[in-house]
Amino acid sequence: MIKAGIVGGTGYTGVELLRLLSQHPQVELAAITSRQEAGTAVSALFPSLRGRVSLAFSHPGQAELKKCDVVFFATPNGVAMGEARALVDAGVRVVDLSADFRLKDVAEWERWYKLKHAAPELVAEAVYGLCEVNREQIRGARLVANPGCYPTAVQLGLLPPIEAGAVDADHLIADAKSGVSGAGRKAELNLMYAEASDNFAAYGLGGHRHWPEIRQGLARAAGREVGLVFVPHLTPMIRGIHATLYGRITKEMDFQALYEKRYANEPFVDVMPAGSHPDTRSARAANVCRIAVHRPLEHGEGAGQSAHANRRDTLVVLCVIDNLMKGASGQAVQNMNLMFGLPESAGLGQAAVVP
Amino acid sequence: MIKAGIVGGTGYTGVELLRLLSQHPQVELAAITSRQEAGTAVSALFPSLRGRVSLAFSHPGQAELKKCDVVFFATPNGVAMGEARALVDAGVRVVDLSADFRLKDVAEWERWYKLKHAAPELVAEAVYGLCEVNREQIRGARLVANPGCYPTAVQLGLLPPIEAGAVDADHLIADAKSGVSGAGRKAELNLMYAEASDNFAAYGLGGHRHWPEIRQGLARAAGREVGLVFVPHLTPMIRGIHATLYGRITKEMDFQALYEKRYANEPFVDVMPAGSHPDTRSARAANVCRIAVHRPLEHGEGAGQSAHANRRDTLVVLCVIDNLMKGASGQAVQNMNLMFGLPESAGLGQAAVVP
Amino acid sequence: MIKAGIVGGTGYTGVELLRLLSQHPQVELAAITSRQEAGTAVSALFPSLRGRVSLAFSHPGQAELKKCDVVFFATPNGVAMGEARALVDAGVRVVDLSADFRLKDVAEWERWYKLKHAAPELVAEAVYGLCEVNREQIRGARLVANPGCYPTAVQLGLLPPIEAGAVDADHLIADAKSGVSGAGRKAELNLMYAEASDNFAAYGLGGHRHWPEIRQGLARAAGREVGLVFVPHLTPMIRGIHATLYGRITKEMDFQALYEKRYANEPFVDVMPAGSHPDTRSARAANVCRIAVHRPLEHGEGAGQSAHANRRDTLVVLCVIDNLMKGASGQAVQNMNLMFGLPESAGLGQAAVVP
Amino acid sequence: MIKAGIVGGTGYTGVELLRLLSQHPQVELAAITSRQEAGTAVSALFPSLRGRVSLAFSHPGQAELKKCDVVFFATPNGVAMGEARALVDAGVRVVDLSADFRLKDVAEWERWYKLKHAAPELVAEAVYGLCEVNREQIRGARLVANPGCYPTAVQLGLLPPIEAGAVDADHLIADAKSGVSGAGRKAELNLMYAEASDNFAAYGLGGHRHWPEIRQGLARAAGREVGLVFVPHLTPMIRGIHATLYGRITKEMDFQALYEKRYANEPFVDVMPAGSHPDTRSARAANVCRIAVHRPLEHGEGAGQSAHANRRDTLVVLCVIDNLMKGASGQAVQNMNLMFGLPESAGLGQAAVVP
Repeated sequence: MIKAGIVGGTGYTGVELLRLLSQHPQVELAAITSRQEAGTAVSALFPSLRGRVSLAFSHPGQAELKKCDVVFFATPNGVAMGEARALVDAGVRVVDLSADFRLKDVAEWERWYKLKHAAPELVAEAVYGLCEVNREQIRGARLVANPGCYPTAVQLGLLPPIEAGAVDADHLIADAKSGVSGAGRKAELNLMYAEASDNFAAYGLGGHRHWPEIRQGLARAAGREVGLVFVPHLTPMIRGIHATLYGRITKEMDFQALYEKRYANEPFVDVMPAGSHPDTRSARAANVCRIAVHRPLEHGEGAGQSAHANRRDTLVVLCVIDNLMKGASGQAVQNMNLMFGLPESAGLGQAAVVP
Repeated sequence: MIKAGIVGGTGYTGVELLRLLSQHPQVELAAITSRQEAGTAVSALFPSLRGRVSLAFSHPGQAELKKCDVVFFATPNGVAMGEARALVDAGVRVVDLSADFRLKDVAEWERWYKLKHAAPELVAEAVYGLCEVNREQIRGARLVANPGCYPTAVQLGLLPPIEAGAVDADHLIADAKSGVSGAGRKAELNLMYAEASDNFAAYGLGGHRHWPEIRQGLARAAGREVGLVFVPHLTPMIRGIHATLYGRITKEMDFQALYEKRYANEPFVDVMPAGSHPDTRSARAANVCRIAVHRPLEHGEGAGQSAHANRRDTLVVLCVIDNLMKGASGQAVQNMNLMFGLPESAGLGQAAVVP
Repeated sequence: MIKAGIVGGTGYTGVELLRLLSQHPQVELAAITSRQEAGTAVSALFPSLRGRVSLAFSHPGQAELKKCDVVFFATPNGVAMGEARALVDAGVRVVDLSADFRLKDVAEWERWYKLKHAAPELVAEAVYGLCEVNREQIRGARLVANPGCYPTAVQLGLLPPIEAGAVDADHLIADAKSGVSGAGRKAELNLMYAEASDNFAAYGLGGHRHWPEIRQGLARAAGREVGLVFVPHLTPMIRGIHATLYGRITKEMDFQALYEKRYANEPFVDVMPAGSHPDTRSARAANVCRIAVHRPLEHGEGAGQSAHANRRDTLVVLCVIDNLMKGASGQAVQNMNLMFGLPESAGLGQAAVVP
Repeated sequence: MIKAGIVGGTGYTGVELLRLLSQHPQVELAAITSRQEAGTAVSALFPSLRGRVSLAFSHPGQAELKKCDVVFFATPNGVAMGEARALVDAGVRVVDLSADFRLKDVAEWERWYKLKHAAPELVAEAVYGLCEVNREQIRGARLVANPGCYPTAVQLGLLPPIEAGAVDADHLIADAKSGVSGAGRKAELNLMYAEASDNFAAYGLGGHRHWPEIRQGLARAAGREVGLVFVPHLTPMIRGIHATLYGRITKEMDFQALYEKRYANEPFVDVMPAGSHPDTRSARAANVCRIAVHRPLEHGEGAGQSAHANRRDTLVVLCVIDNLMKGASGQAVQNMNLMFGLPESAGLGQAAVVP
């Protein structure tokens, strides 16, 4: 059994990790820390885990995290960078669900997160945990930077045509919609039920921290800088991300086949049949990314003799995940499975909860 | 007092018309028809109108619609085209909330709506009721084709830069999100609470009937054919449309000023301060369209010396309406006000319901 | 025109007052205060009021509230009791939407609200603003204690049989369900979208502050102490209270007729036809209380020859309001109308928003 | 491996059975029938099951149900009674999730379900599948009548004090709130998103089919007729039942201890600590019933010297389940486990999905 610890388990990625790890056949939950809830039984804070998790939160300073085989950081940004070093040095493998090790350009990270980075040398070592891109490096990694929720959906949706050089990488558009749990378990006015329910709005057009993370991943795939407009929206649902992705086609090909081939061996990426419209609930509480590829009509059939008749120049990709699963804790467990040589799907066999 | 009749008042645009007209200071509700509910008191079907509306539904054949000054069609597509002729001939002015008279190209209409048009000559006469474009023609119109909900939001959002020739009109993108009431008051499986709640999906990428309507309006403004990718999404909320609109900038200008000037005298279009993110509830139950104009970063500041540094080539417009108000019944009342020489805002003074 | 001021207008009862008063034909909004938002335009905090309210929040110390004809307190409990005295002495009439003046027993108030009361002499003078009970006293009142949301629904639902001595007043049960806005506009974890959505729970069984308020009102109607079990529940909706009320029948009568007669002249209480199940949205954004009276079967028809056959001993009353309207701001405007001799319905003609 | 068949798998209890059985370690899904969807892949109808279920729906007449070890009926009422006989005779064990075999009094069943019963002799044989009551009989049963959702919650909540003779069994009250999926996967107007969302209402006060089922179970526990007022409500959530149960205490005892003892060995009933308020999501997608026991104050502390001071005569029990799990498909699997001598929790280890 792999002994697992969780640092900062009182947020949504924390409780989701607990849900998953408590059912994982090869994992033993050894410790979970919380400064604020030290001494409280996990099941007192999360009654949903009554009868499933018998641990209590322990104080960060007192948890024996170094005796764990793996430690997950489910902390706000800025915590893991200060604590990962000691664990890694002690031979503990680390999966960081925060953003501390995601951006390779430390200066850019500091600009976006408005903090001085405490462990730049670990940034260099950290492996970006998008399994569909870095599977081999993850197996050997001591420290995995678990991707953000939007970056997971947008990258999985755009990688195939970018790798194939088939869309204009200077003008990509990601119109993304997220459920409210994506903002974390914190009491902010705009996240209140009476504010967020029966309502819909964009946010972050002035700059969102997931934008440089997405651009880094796409640039790597493209082998060059990319241009991306990223517009996130807050949607009145608990879980789920729906990314609607637009790219101008620069090279003709069978895009459906391109996606199917790219993800043929991926256990957690599902390329749906042509014409599909995946809904977020088809991924609810499951570690899966579902993708559909479209080329909608832009100019009309009525355009008749004109040069524009029946034009379909824009690739539209629909991509859904559960932001807490493939977008966070599920992907973290997938990374752990790879790091410890377990079957990649171990403990991740849950079917989506519908309705 | 203007005597108003409603044909087919059992749907959502019907009950919304009833809510508005029952409070309109210069309107008397004279008749409301429904084949299915003939004889039923309106307030028995809609208890929300108890004490407000004392009419009963009457059978279409028996309602004295020709004695009305104005008749609203709140019917499924295909009804108004068969009945409008007789009313217009009798001197009754008609506002059609269905799609029967929206497309000027009858052949295209027949292709999209899969019906033979019953009154092509009225199509030529009908005025498209987007007040912000056709105000003067509406005043004199005998027959107004009230715009669709998506077309209202997308056109109001894109008209200024298209009229100014400032964006690439061949590659416009409208990523639109609608509340569920936009689909009408009908029992379809995908519109059920247990299906649509806590869920989000695109639909209609194979072709949506509002696409030719939007293209017609934008083409008219552009003075040429336009290319448009239109992706509608179903959002778990009752009312509201949020259109996120993308256009590649082809001519530099102060877009905030452009929009403010274009809509300076419009009583129901609100150009918000730069940097705003309008939410749909700010228009809930009110006849208003709120718009915000953005130019988000596409290439990074980190791009440094490259040609791409700090590029902001894409205009992003956020546009919200209540689909049943400015997107349907509110706009219909606005059209009626214009047709009868009333103050354009008469009966439309409701502030949005928040929270 | 009546000059109206609002103290503490940044909460939900505040924004609802603004929505109502900005459309009230005989009211001029003169001042609105907020310590935190002083200097901010009201429409910057509440974009839904753009174009409707041009005031800015002013600092409590600087607002010229004494020049108002009426001042509404939309503040947390404990504020009005400190400030009402000076206003009343200056001849300003006061409607307090908080709980400061609702309980006549000051000691009980202090026990429940855990504060020392600052103006016990005003408690004696204050009129409890349930118009259906105290209409005449309200007309002459200098200070009105606007009822709580649950107390409004529960009292209106139970008053008729209690006044008639027809139910066992020692064992009343009020099972009440409230939308989330009832908790106010504050960032608390359990009120977050991701916590309160797709979820349902009771709360406050250890004691809820509306319990003594309800008991006071019912006891007054009964002319004796009453016993009441009050169980509030948090429901995933924005607005609305549904009270399901149970009383053991002690005197046979036609209860439908009893209710219809009791509320025959009430403009804002709607006794629905026998057999009705009012839904909360039939009161959404409208100042109305809808009531249905039932006597469901308790023992079965199959009970045959037994003493219990077909017993229907329990009166079940269903009662819905919008907690922000008849349960708060709408009722406050109704009280103001009475205090100033205006038509009781002035500015309250809005039909419910459906869907 | 147990070969399982499902008759009528296109509804919500069907898809939930599929979710559970596809992950059950000792079950092989052998057949699933649907008249309407015959030939369709299960995962085409339910994309949430892509990669989990490879079966297609087969025509009822062609499925080899008799080769199954167990067949679940997830059909509308009236189907199983016609088909169960042949299966039972063929040695197949049957779990019926519909209501066909729940009421022992066939005449009463026919009165409530308005059908002539096709297999009254099987009614006598069928075991009512409330495991916490009939565990031993279920083990040997050929035919199990899986309880209804409301009846599961209400019976588990009321059984302990009724068995103990500690409450007045003539005047029980069950105020129950259900998510919308409880009504099944069918397109009815009142179940539409735009109707049921942001709304709350009671229904069925004229008589609900679960009422005789609950009374039958409580009467059996009481050893006599019982009186019950049952008021169901429709709540804007997908899954979940919250039953708030009221009984007048007739015998003093430690009710917390009573419940803890009654359910001490029950794997799927969780008696929460005194003072708890269970929320429905703590059972979401999990096979569990959580219960809290309260005795709220009825008469005030301010009642002082009166006979009523501090009275707490009413027992209030809060009881939550997921209507599709412990209220339907989860309980059906629990019954199957008992029938086949498997560990009662096999395949039911899912923790609740929170948030």
